[in-house]
Amino acid sequence: MSEQTAWEIARLETGIPGFDQVSNGGLPKNRTSVVAGTAGSGKTVLALQFLMSGVRNYDEGGVFVTFEESPEDLIYNVKSFGWDLDGLLRRKKIAVVDATPDPGEINVEAGSFDLTALLARIENGVREVNAKRVILDAIGALFPQFTDSSTVRRELHRIAAGLRKLGVTTLITMERLDEEGGVGRFGVEEFVADNVIILRNRLDQEKRRRTIEILKFRGCMHQKGEYTFTVDASEGISILPLSAIELKQSSSDKR
Amino acid sequence: MSEQTAWEIARLETGIPGFDQVSNGGLPKNRTSVVAGTAGSGKTVLALQFLMSGVRNYDEGGVFVTFEESPEDLIYNVKSFGWDLDGLLRRKKIAVVDATPDPGEINVEAGSFDLTALLARIENGVREVNAKRVILDAIGALFPQFTDSSTVRRELHRIAAGLRKLGVTTLITMERLDEEGGVGRFGVEEFVADNVIILRNRLDQEKRRRTIEILKFRGCMHQKGEYTFTVDASEGISILPLSAIELKQSSSDKR
Amino acid sequence: MSEQTAWEIARLETGIPGFDQVSNGGLPKNRTSVVAGTAGSGKTVLALQFLMSGVRNYDEGGVFVTFEESPEDLIYNVKSFGWDLDGLLRRKKIAVVDATPDPGEINVEAGSFDLTALLARIENGVREVNAKRVILDAIGALFPQFTDSSTVRRELHRIAAGLRKLGVTTLITMERLDEEGGVGRFGVEEFVADNVIILRNRLDQEKRRRTIEILKFRGCMHQKGEYTFTVDASEGISILPLSAIELKQSSSDKR
Amino acid sequence: MSEQTAWEIARLETGIPGFDQVSNGGLPKNRTSVVAGTAGSGKTVLALQFLMSGVRNYDEGGVFVTFEESPEDLIYNVKSFGWDLDGLLRRKKIAVVDATPDPGEINVEAGSFDLTALLARIENGVREVNAKRVILDAIGALFPQFTDSSTVRRELHRIAAGLRKLGVTTLITMERLDEEGGVGRFGVEEFVADNVIILRNRLDQEKRRRTIEILKFRGCMHQKGEYTFTVDASEGISILPLSAIELKQSSSDKR
Amino acid sequence: MSEQTAWEIARLETGIPGFDQVSNGGLPKNRTSVVAGTAGSGKTVLALQFLMSGVRNYDEGGVFVTFEESPEDLIYNVKSFGWDLDGLLRRKKIAVVDATPDPGEINVEAGSFDLTALLARIENGVREVNAKRVILDAIGALFPQFTDSSTVRRELHRIAAGLRKLGVTTLITMERLDEEGGVGRFGVEEFVADNVIILRNRLDQEKRRRTIEILKFRGCMHQKGEYTFTVDASEGISILPLSAIELKQSSSDKR
Amino acid sequence: MSEQTAWEIARLETGIPGFDQVSNGGLPKNRTSVVAGTAGSGKTVLALQFLMSGVRNYDEGGVFVTFEESPEDLIYNVKSFGWDLDGLLRRKKIAVVDATPDPGEINVEAGSFDLTALLARIENGVREVNAKRVILDAIGALFPQFTDSSTVRRELHRIAAGLRKLGVTTLITMERLDEEGGVGRFGVEEFVADNVIILRNRLDQEKRRRTIEILKFRGCMHQKGEYTFTVDASEGISILPLSAIELKQSSSDKR
Ligand SMILES: Nc1ncnc2c1ncn2[C@@H]1O[C@H](COP(=O)(O)OP(=O)(O)OP(=O)(O)O)[C@@H](O)[C@H]1O
Ligand SMILES: Nc1ncnc2c1ncn2[C@@H]1O[C@H](COP(=O)(O)OP(=O)(O)OP(=O)(O)O)[C@@H](O)[C@H]1O
Ligand SMILES: Nc1ncnc2c1ncn2[C@@H]1O[C@H](COP(=O)(O)OP(=O)(O)OP(=O)(O)O)[C@@H](O)[C@H]1O
Ligand SMILES: Nc1ncnc2c1ncn2[C@@H]1O[C@H](COP(=O)(O)OP(=O)(O)OP(=O)(O)O)[C@@H](O)[C@H]1O
Ligand SMILES: Nc1ncnc2c1ncn2[C@@H]1O[C@H](COP(=O)(O)OP(=O)(O)OP(=O)(O)O)[C@@H](O)[C@H]1O
Ligand SMILES: Nc1ncnc2c1ncn2[C@@H]1O[C@H](COP(=O)(O)OP(=O)(O)OP(=O)(O)O)[C@@H](O)[C@H]1O
Ligand SMILES: [Mg+2]
Ligand SMILES: [Mg+2]
Ligand SMILES: [Mg+2]
Ligand SMILES: [Mg+2]
Ligand SMILES: [Mg+2]
Ligand SMILES: [Mg+2]
Repeated sequence: MSEQTAWEIARLETGIPGFDQVSNGGLPKNRTSVVAGTAGSGKTVLALQFLMSGVRNYDEGGVFVTFEESPEDLIYNVKSFGWDLDGLLRRKKIAVVDATPDPGEINVEAGSFDLTALLARIENGVREVNAKRVILDAIGALFPQFTDSSTVRRELHRIAAGLRKLGVTTLITMERLDEEGGVGRFGVEEFVADNVIILRNRLDQEKRRRTIEILKFRGCMHQKGEYTFTVDASEGISILPLSAIELKQSSSDKR
Repeated sequence: MSEQTAWEIARLETGIPGFDQVSNGGLPKNRTSVVAGTAGSGKTVLALQFLMSGVRNYDEGGVFVTFEESPEDLIYNVKSFGWDLDGLLRRKKIAVVDATPDPGEINVEAGSFDLTALLARIENGVREVNAKRVILDAIGALFPQFTDSSTVRRELHRIAAGLRKLGVTTLITMERLDEEGGVGRFGVEEFVADNVIILRNRLDQEKRRRTIEILKFRGCMHQKGEYTFTVDASEGISILPLSAIELKQSSSDKR
Repeated sequence: MSEQTAWEIARLETGIPGFDQVSNGGLPKNRTSVVAGTAGSGKTVLALQFLMSGVRNYDEGGVFVTFEESPEDLIYNVKSFGWDLDGLLRRKKIAVVDATPDPGEINVEAGSFDLTALLARIENGVREVNAKRVILDAIGALFPQFTDSSTVRRELHRIAAGLRKLGVTTLITMERLDEEGGVGRFGVEEFVADNVIILRNRLDQEKRRRTIEILKFRGCMHQKGEYTFTVDASEGISILPLSAIELKQSSSDKR
Repeated sequence: MSEQTAWEIARLETGIPGFDQVSNGGLPKNRTSVVAGTAGSGKTVLALQFLMSGVRNYDEGGVFVTFEESPEDLIYNVKSFGWDLDGLLRRKKIAVVDATPDPGEINVEAGSFDLTALLARIENGVREVNAKRVILDAIGALFPQFTDSSTVRRELHRIAAGLRKLGVTTLITMERLDEEGGVGRFGVEEFVADNVIILRNRLDQEKRRRTIEILKFRGCMHQKGEYTFTVDASEGISILPLSAIELKQSSSDKR
Repeated sequence: MSEQTAWEIARLETGIPGFDQVSNGGLPKNRTSVVAGTAGSGKTVLALQFLMSGVRNYDEGGVFVTFEESPEDLIYNVKSFGWDLDGLLRRKKIAVVDATPDPGEINVEAGSFDLTALLARIENGVREVNAKRVILDAIGALFPQFTDSSTVRRELHRIAAGLRKLGVTTLITMERLDEEGGVGRFGVEEFVADNVIILRNRLDQEKRRRTIEILKFRGCMHQKGEYTFTVDASEGISILPLSAIELKQSSSDKR
Repeated sequence: MSEQTAWEIARLETGIPGFDQVSNGGLPKNRTSVVAGTAGSGKTVLALQFLMSGVRNYDEGGVFVTFEESPEDLIYNVKSFGWDLDGLLRRKKIAVVDATPDPGEINVEAGSFDLTALLARIENGVREVNAKRVILDAIGALFPQFTDSSTVRRELHRIAAGLRKLGVTTLITMERLDEEGGVGRFGVEEFVADNVIILRNRLDQEKRRRTIEILKFRGCMHQKGEYTFTVDASEGISILPLSAIELKQSSSDKR
């Protein structure tokens, strides 16, 4: 249909082992991508590793907005990876925006979240550390159970638009109850998002295996299907950029 | 029952590789067809390729109504296919109607969409570029979650009727949460529509495969069942006009 | 239990190839039968072919009540079968009652359908063309989503009773979302109806195959199970009056 | 635990071929049994055959309460079995109570059924023909969709208690949407009923096969599991009192 | 972790053949156990046999609270087992509390059950026959369909607490719609109960097979998994205290 | 990505046989872990064994908050394990907080639980026995059926925050209706919790097998997948720290 162009959507190299290969070059730059996964599937580790790698490998600041884990917990939880989050906070490489519920408040009306205030706090963080990367971790907390899907859609649009203005590349993590079926709880999330990544923690004959899949990247080439990854204390997440078939062959080669 | 007539419903050649073969000649002319698919199944690429091919191969203008992606994103996202949407907008070959939610507005009442105004804006676009092809991309955004199915039915009829008067051939894309089961969210969409095309992104043993199926074309012959297609940067969408069986044989012939 | 009687419920030969064999003689005469099927399963073609055959083979007039497709579309859609609906309308062999939603009306209260008025319009049509056959196509449109099932039951009884008085044999087509499970949306349709026919568009390994089944004919013998049928431009619908097993054998005989 | 007693709950021989063997002697006498089945599974034929056989073989009168089919239809529908219902009505062997919705009434409030009046009409019928057998056909019509299950429970108890006083053996037929899962729509029917029989119309590889199962008879021995039956014009329903295994053997013996 | 103690929770021998083996000694004494099962699974027979055996083998009185079957029916239904319930009622060995709905009352408000009154009536019965065993049969009738699960939980606690004070061992039978999934209708019953027994009526290739399983006994050892049982006229229920595997072997030994 | 650090999140050895191996060192110290499982899956036994082992092996006090079983029942139920709960209560090694519903109260408004009061009672218990380990058993009772998921989320955060201040390691047990699917009833529990353990009581060919899985431990290494465990009178729970494969091999080695 057209002469093969060299043109490609700009990407941001993540530095996460294997991810830049599987995604054909990293995350779409200056855009928002959604990472969906069940509990414990590795969303928070992936998101933080994205920030850490930004600081270490590309000297890019990062902002982490946390809706579930307190900043203290976050810092503590990733120490075992050898990530000195605390030091980076002090050295103003990374900023944390604490959006967890205040245990002191008792009767907060559900759903009364103030998105404009949140965006302002994120903007402050971005300025403070000159951030190029932003994380919104566990965004499900933003929407009460019975929110109308049109509201979810509009708010997600506002978040993406607000962040785009700041010139940052954003990862939003989203909770998922099942490995199969639709991506989000409200049936609109996967359509509103420009880019969707799925983390799975497959249970097969009582053993677990972790996989990552790029479900869609609007306007981008990327590898299709699921890729196996591991989480370990020295490396964090590493993705094996081999398809299931290649993996099987390579493992049978070894025997 | 009757002498074999030469009579056939008029078709509009799409120019999308393989589609005109699989559909026995293209889309039913001057009518509305629905393209349903899960997130990332290729709805927007198919729809835009339909417009691009109209301009390039048949010199027919096109109007693109977008409910999810902003016009700027659209232009940017398809650059990698070598499609110069921007140039075509300037040369008044293609018009874009922006129906995405306004991030500035906060308290829009859900469902208060003004269909008459939208049809008027489309009509303007059609006049401006002398359009023969119209796209409504991601129409799900039009109907809040709890819309009664009778309302959805009536509004879909009004859209189809409004567009028919303009003498254009229309593709409406519709979001789908599952590869199986009914086509739309409200249980009436597939019955109201004259023509229904399904895009699938099948997950089989952790690999993805894309297929297209013409589920129904009222009054038209068409090939039945699913056909494999690919999306790549130089061609966009290409459909392999071979059935699953032919495909298997041709691939086993090669070995 | 009794001496074998020659007595049999009166039937109306449909003239649809294969149907009169599979049904042991045609539709129960002067009664209402329901044809249920998913989108594109062939309900409208079957229904119209029933009317066409009435005119051509038995010189019986027919009335077509349409809830989804406009009369103009209907006429146009079946031209490819060589059916000159337009001519038959002019020659007062067939009458069409247009019960599609009026695109001009905006705020019609859902569910406020006037059944008495509809029956009166049908009666007019029957008189006008001296009809023996009546079609109500896509009756789902009559009942909004949240209609109580008792209401649906009562209205279906009123329709059947009203039509019986006119001395006609009626086919009502009904939309179905899934190939499996209950027949109608409200869980009562299949019990109220005297006769139920199911059209299926089976998806098996990405290929489609059409089947027809007579689920029940009150008071009548009929063949049981599913029969394959085809739709083509010269014949319309033709049913292969062979069971799956006979079909397999006959096809293996050929080899 | 106890000396084997000769004592057995009294039974009423039905005269339906095979049924009295499968049930170890017929229906529990002077009690109510529920027959549940999907549309066209044979509920009405079984119920009527129960009455016919009462008249013919045991000279017992019968009352048929019909909620779906009009008396005229009933009479007409079973003529093909050689059952002269009309004659039996005139000779006061069988009485029919018409409880179908009145097509003339338009705005009957759903659920406003008067059970006391119904029981009185049944009592009249029983007196008139000196009935020993009573049928309530398609009782689902009694309960609107959103009836609370406690109400259904209480009303079913009242019906059973009312009929027991009349000294009759009753069959109540009940509509079922699926071959699997719970028996009734409200989740209490099968627990309230003393005796439950299930008719199935199994779809296996596109062929249908009819089976009958006695799910429970309180206080009675009966055969367990499903038994095949047929419906034909000369015999009505005949049950093969052989288990699936015996059936297989006997059919393989023949070869 | 500890020296093996001889200490064991006190048990009440049931006398039901096989049950005391499968349960490692009978029901937990002075406690409430729930028996859940689908319609006709044998709940009422098991419960009554528990009382009968108490009288016959251990000279312990029993109280039967019935929510579905009238006392007259109960007495009649178990005559075929050679159980002379009537005589035992007269000899004040067994008392029956009739908690079935009163067919005379028409407009009882659903859910307005008076638990305190019920407990008082049970207490009377217990005193009258000096009961050690109590049955509450078909307790589902106590809770209308839309009862909040917290209410169900609290009422079940009150019943258990009330009965414990009386120093009796209680069986409560509970209706279940499906052989799989949660035990009760409200999702809390199995957690509130100290002890849960499941009766199943498995349908496997159109044949039925009955099994019993002790799902949990708080604080007690018991055999795990399902055990086959039979119901026959001379023995009532007999459980085969062999696991499925042992059963297979023993049956293949015989050949 | 980083030099392998020796740093690891602090753990509390549980002393439960096998658990400290499967969890790579015990529960995350000073944090809250959720144990979810179906009825009878062993939640209460695991929780109590955690406390018992604390007292016996590490001389750490424990507080047990019980929502379902009364303190008397608890004490009685675990006597068979040789656990002298009563003695430990008297020697102020273990404290029990009774949060079961009061059978005397009749009209408590569902959901009106006072979390602040509960936390205060727990704090008292912790002080009294100088507790390092806390159990909240059967927490589902805290949330009525229709609680909004945002409320559940906030309350769970408050509980975890309140307990953290006390410097204790907490296990919360949570009821689950199905072995598959989401962990909790409200769709948020598994995301709010830092650590999730699942107990399963798998039914496979009518036999039961118990397994334990650490679904997630935020910030910690742990073994993946399900491990078999047993409950017996002398040991309580013992986990086999071998994977399914190792288990198969070791069992086939033995033969
Ligand atoms: N330039 C490209 N080269 C190759 N593949 C591309 C390119 N652009 C898009 N794709 C593929 O097409 C997918 C997106 O297709 P498209 O946006 O048409 O899907 P969609 O059905 O409209 O999804 P949504 O419902 O989310 O809008 C991408 O995820 C990617 O896999
Ligand atoms: N002229 C034709 N030649 C061959 N096939 C045709 C022709 N016209 C229609 N068909 C086939 O019949 C299908 C439509 O059948 P029909 O309109 O009767 O379905 P339906 O069950 O009424 O669907 P709906 O519920 O959407 O109205 C088309 O999708 C096409 O596959
Ligand atoms: N005279 C007959 N000869 C042979 N088969 C018959 C005859 N009459 C009825 N049948 C068969 O019995 C079926 C209808 O049985 P019946 O009316 O008893 O079903 P049902 O369970 O009452 O259905 P519904 O719920 O729709 O009332 C028919 O569909 C047909 O297959
Ligand atoms: N005398 C008997 N001899 C043999 N089997 C019997 C006898 N009485 C009952 N049964 C069997 O037991 C079944 C009924 O058992 P029971 O009434 O205990 O079930 P249930 O679980 O209480 O059912 P429901 O929930 O409907 O009350 C009967 O359907 C029958 O199969
Ligand atoms: N002393 C014992 N010896 C052997 N097994 C026991 C003993 N006590 C309990 N069990 C087993 O443990 C099961 C109960 O475990 P536990 O009470 O911990 O379950 P649970 O998950 O808390 O259940 P629930 O949700 O109903 O409270 C019993 O059903 C029994 O199988
Ligand atoms: N230091 C570590 N070493 C090895 N594995 C770890 C380490 N930290 C975490 N993990 C693994 O990662 C899992 C948690 O990952 P993570 O917190 O990113 O999941 P998540 O998807 O964010 O879950 P949630 O939705 O519950 O927040 C842990 O359960 C553990 O299996
Ligand atoms: Mg996380
Ligand atoms: Mg799109
Ligand atoms: Mg149609
Ligand atoms: Mg019937
Ligand atoms: Mg019972
Ligand atoms: Mg417990």
